[in-house]
Amino acid sequence: MERPIGVIDSGVGGLTVLHELKRQLPKEQFIYLGDTLRCPYGSKGEEEVIQYTWEMVNYLMKFDIKMLVIACNTATALVLEQLKQNLPIPVIGVIEPGARAAIKATQSNHVAIIGTENTIHSQAYEHALIRIKPNIDTTAVACPKFVPLIESGNFVLEEAKEIVEESLEFINHYPTIDTLILGCTHYPIIQSLIEEVVGPRVTVLSSAVETGFEVSTLLTFYNLYHANTEEIHEPAIFTTGKLHVFQRLKEDIFQLKNASLKHITLS
Amino acid sequence: MERPIGVIDSGVGGLTVLHELKRQLPKEQFIYLGDTLRCPYGSKGEEEVIQYTWEMVNYLMKFDIKMLVIACNTATALVLEQLKQNLPIPVIGVIEPGARAAIKATQSNHVAIIGTENTIHSQAYEHALIRIKPNIDTTAVACPKFVPLIESGNFVLEEAKEIVEESLEFINHYPTIDTLILGCTHYPIIQSLIEEVVGPRVTVLSSAVETGFEVSTLLTFYNLYHANTEEIHEPAIFTTGKLHVFQRLKEDIFQLKNASLKHITLS
Repeated sequence: MERPIGVIDSGVGGLTVLHELKRQLPKEQFIYLGDTLRCPYGSKGEEEVIQYTWEMVNYLMKFDIKMLVIACNTATALVLEQLKQNLPIPVIGVIEPGARAAIKATQSNHVAIIGTENTIHSQAYEHALIRIKPNIDTTAVACPKFVPLIESGNFVLEEAKEIVEESLEFINHYPTIDTLILGCTHYPIIQSLIEEVVGPRVTVLSSAVETGFEVSTLLTFYNLYHANTEEIHEPAIFTTGKLHVFQRLKEDIFQLKNASLKHITLS
Repeated sequence: MERPIGVIDSGVGGLTVLHELKRQLPKEQFIYLGDTLRCPYGSKGEEEVIQYTWEMVNYLMKFDIKMLVIACNTATALVLEQLKQNLPIPVIGVIEPGARAAIKATQSNHVAIIGTENTIHSQAYEHALIRIKPNIDTTAVACPKFVPLIESGNFVLEEAKEIVEESLEFINHYPTIDTLILGCTHYPIIQSLIEEVVGPRVTVLSSAVETGFEVSTLLTFYNLYHANTEEIHEPAIFTTGKLHVFQRLKEDIFQLKNASLKHITLS
């Protein structure tokens, strides 16, 4: 049997990455772990996020994964470098792909980033952008209300639009912004609402979509592509929390209907 | 001094890749070699293309390049695997990035590819697409008139539009095609004309733009980013042919105004 790719997130948000990985790389097998019980990571202390992330990684390493995708911006910002240095497999975060896609997309050279408080406070996107393109302009704003909204499952309500409008009000004050990075993997779940609010001037980039592209690139360069075209393995989804939000999202939104879903406990 | 990235092409077409590399990775230094004297490679014999490509590579290796970009679809199709196996540095072709971008972009799952006769005959794009996504539909058509048109510099004429319309007529017979890969690095020079002819139904993807993204990814994973933010090195361009088309393109189209340009001879 070929080795799977592991995907971790603090909750359901990383399903946006899993969806894109499965769409762009249908031959690969994926194992997903969402730590919904302890979600959100975005406002937790750094030591806690590091400990929780390692617990998820150690759980998935038992499945002999060939590559690890940190489908959580907060965990990428705080733990990616440590994981890269300590794991014997390639580790991919969601921040660099989003930053690269923004550099590719922007014509005005002014990029906005939204994310959790921890991600924005870490300035991880600014660092990634500036490391590649020193003269780029950035505006980063935390949207702490988005993750609880999405995890609650109530994001179709009128209240959701009000929260999005209020949170993205800052865009109106910067006429040169032409690109917005959704710096949290939960946010693509409300991407159409975000696009409606920011209007056609701003290209909205999902780090989930771009991470799929980057995983594909690295599978080539590490010679890790799934070679067997006959077997198709559906994703296996594990969560430390309740199953119902996963159940609904995987069936209604993510076309991951045949994925298995199971509750687990992390020690 | 930091090590440069080498870029090779059969002629001026790879300047579209160089332009994107410089735009997306402004801190890096690039050395470009276009074998204009022996262009086009697209209708040459395989042994000739292999020999010419190695002559270019050996020339650039003297500059201690840290990465090699094969900015020519024909050379990628015929020589990439050989170069990857024999060079001590990462080698990136333009076919995989274009294929991956098409998989990311297509919603209908039907992708068209245009390129030189050699590239289309090699089926390199179909192989790259199917290896990643076995159920994708592809339609590939050679456009042998495009490269001579572009290298002649007469691509603003009315005749150019007629050639493009005639060459892309096949698109009209396939209503499910929603994505077109420009499978030759010369073609982005006439991209706006191509987009006008195929209309808004079809997303036109330049493998040049996507290769920039892929080079950026690999610089991260091989820890090869240019670390010094102070020095800015303009690209150095070498050609085996006449300087005037390079001169005009680098100044008028490619915003590579400050690049140096020099004629060289390959033995």
